[in-house]
Amino acid sequence: MKETLFTKGDKASAEYFVGEVWIKVVVSPTDLFDCVVNDVVFAPGARTNWHTHPGGQILICTDGLGYYQEKGKSIQLLNKGDVVKILPGLEHWHGATPNGEFTHIAINPSTTKGGVNWMEKVTDEEYNK
Amino acid sequence: MKETLFTKGDKASAEYFVGEVWIKVVVSPTDLFDCVVNDVVFAPGARTNWHTHPGGQILICTDGLGYYQEKGKSIQLLNKGDVVKILPGLEHWHGATPNGEFTHIAINPSTTKGGVNWMEKVTDEEYNK
Repeated sequence: MKETLFTKGDKASAEYFVGEVWIKVVVSPTDLFDCVVNDVVFAPGARTNWHTHPGGQILICTDGLGYYQEKGKSIQLLNKGDVVKILPGLEHWHGATPNGEFTHIAINPSTTKGGVNWMEKVTDEEYNK
Repeated sequence: MKETLFTKGDKASAEYFVGEVWIKVVVSPTDLFDCVVNDVVFAPGARTNWHTHPGGQILICTDGLGYYQEKGKSIQLLNKGDVVKILPGLEHWHGATPNGEFTHIAINPSTTKGGVNWMEKVTDEEYNK
């Protein structure tokens, strides 16, 4: 059996994600840091909606193969050990590839500026490009 | 061969650590986030000096067995998947157990307030208690 860093967290809201996504809160907004940390597991084909973070976001990929796309650019493939640095205000989405689960740690700095600004869903056409 | 998340970074300064420690900068102070992230590997018996962080620190343990101690408290044993939340200004140290390497991701939020205030070395007597 494969040993993962964290067990799966709670199911994420269908409002902000396509497909099954589990979010484990590692550092919550009520902890005394200006930073929120989540461990996120995406089922095959699952992904976030398009969104931005006022304080930016850092993804540390820990398991499986993932996708990351910035608005207006091509989709990037993500492997275990890859780090994605997403600047404040940059519109983007992330998720799993179609064939397996994908897990990343998501670090959201400066959350006193706000957490996430959620936007439209990533369509199948966008996802399959 | 065991698959680690990151390869080892540069050797850390003997001024602030006892024993061999490797630090890989994941998110640097020059990146545009108010947050610094490092992957830290401790050789058996290696540890930080006593220190504090003005913005606090979050440790995510990713491999091996580690030690963590807050000033005036007992040493805690750390396992893979454990998360340590260290409040701003709290004096503490962390490192490997005597028998194997230990690896953690270290997240330092609010680094515009400062990074680390280094203090005295953790003596063998303190380490072996």
